[in-house]
Amino acid sequence: MFLSFEGIDGSGKSTQARRLAEVLRARGQNCVLTREPGGSPGAEEIRRLLVEGGGERWSPETELLLFNAARRDHLERTIRPALARGDWVISDRFADSSRVYQGLVRAENRRLVEELHRLVIGIEPDRSFVIDIDPAVSLARGRSRGGSEDRYESLGLDFQQRLRAGFLALAQEFPDRIRVIDGSGDADTVAARIMAAL
Amino acid sequence: MFLSFEGIDGSGKSTQARRLAEVLRARGQNCVLTREPGGSPGAEEIRRLLVEGGGERWSPETELLLFNAARRDHLERTIRPALARGDWVISDRFADSSRVYQGLVRAENRRLVEELHRLVIGIEPDRSFVIDIDPAVSLARGRSRGGSEDRYESLGLDFQQRLRAGFLALAQEFPDRIRVIDGSGDADTVAARIMAAL
Repeated sequence: MFLSFEGIDGSGKSTQARRLAEVLRARGQNCVLTREPGGSPGAEEIRRLLVEGGGERWSPETELLLFNAARRDHLERTIRPALARGDWVISDRFADSSRVYQGLVRAENRRLVEELHRLVIGIEPDRSFVIDIDPAVSLARGRSRGGSEDRYESLGLDFQQRLRAGFLALAQEFPDRIRVIDGSGDADTVAARIMAAL
Repeated sequence: MFLSFEGIDGSGKSTQARRLAEVLRARGQNCVLTREPGGSPGAEEIRRLLVEGGGERWSPETELLLFNAARRDHLERTIRPALARGDWVISDRFADSSRVYQGLVRAENRRLVEELHRLVIGIEPDRSFVIDIDPAVSLARGRSRGGSEDRYESLGLDFQQRLRAGFLALAQEFPDRIRVIDGSGDADTVAARIMAAL
């Protein structure tokens, strides 16, 4: 099984991805916990170009190409080998993030996003969880984390609200694959919602 | 006018691109001399990922995506603004290098190369010069340069011979745009051949 967690920054998806991996391992299921952009040594190097620097460092199209380069490396070096071994893969973000960030919110490039995905990626997760939360709450969480990986968060509340709307629209578009999870409440509560949906 | 110089490493194309820019400037033509991968601040950062490290650091497909990301940035931030000002642009490598390196020699990916080019680049130089030279000679020139940018040169003589054949095949495919220039002899001799072809 290949699972992805999606949502805006600070939605709690990274925490929930890690918790799900722990639960699966405790039940004896080998499980690779990974993330995007990144998830393989090469993709982590590309990640640095994507998450550092100002919001206008790259055009939406250049950014999309960098995400696809990182995703292709991640797929070849981490995801496909793990699935071939019979491991489960849990990824903190995958192609839905490109559909929303580069395809809907930064620019109206959804068709380009889909064409590139078809050409160089081609795979979808078996199930994707969108952790849904009020952007005002998630933005506060993101700021409290600090660090240098703040390129998207620097784009502000309006940007986060458009991201949230984009993820919810995507869930309508892929109802068989995407489950929207209420991200409010503490981590135990949200984890229980995810296990119920799984 | 947008001109590109192509050919295997050590063919003398960088020297000839610089000389042509000097000649044009001496005649009063504003001229931007640039190069790929690179040619804009962002693309130069992507370049470091491409030219350093071992020959198998990236799969052909990931490498192709990185080249297209760098090319898109180069196009947006350097080439199009220069052409809009009425400057000439002389680029040391452009999309023909991807056609040969990623499309023919590293893998049989020519169709993917063309689809990506159509989706995210779309422009061709007005004229491209392939500086043609015996790979044994060019490899010796490359080694004498030293430096850390040796990822392709580390792939050896057979690889360079396939590159040369690829560039010559491309010149047959685009006879209106590409001129093959005999790269033997000293730099003055080669420069005179280029001026005659231009």
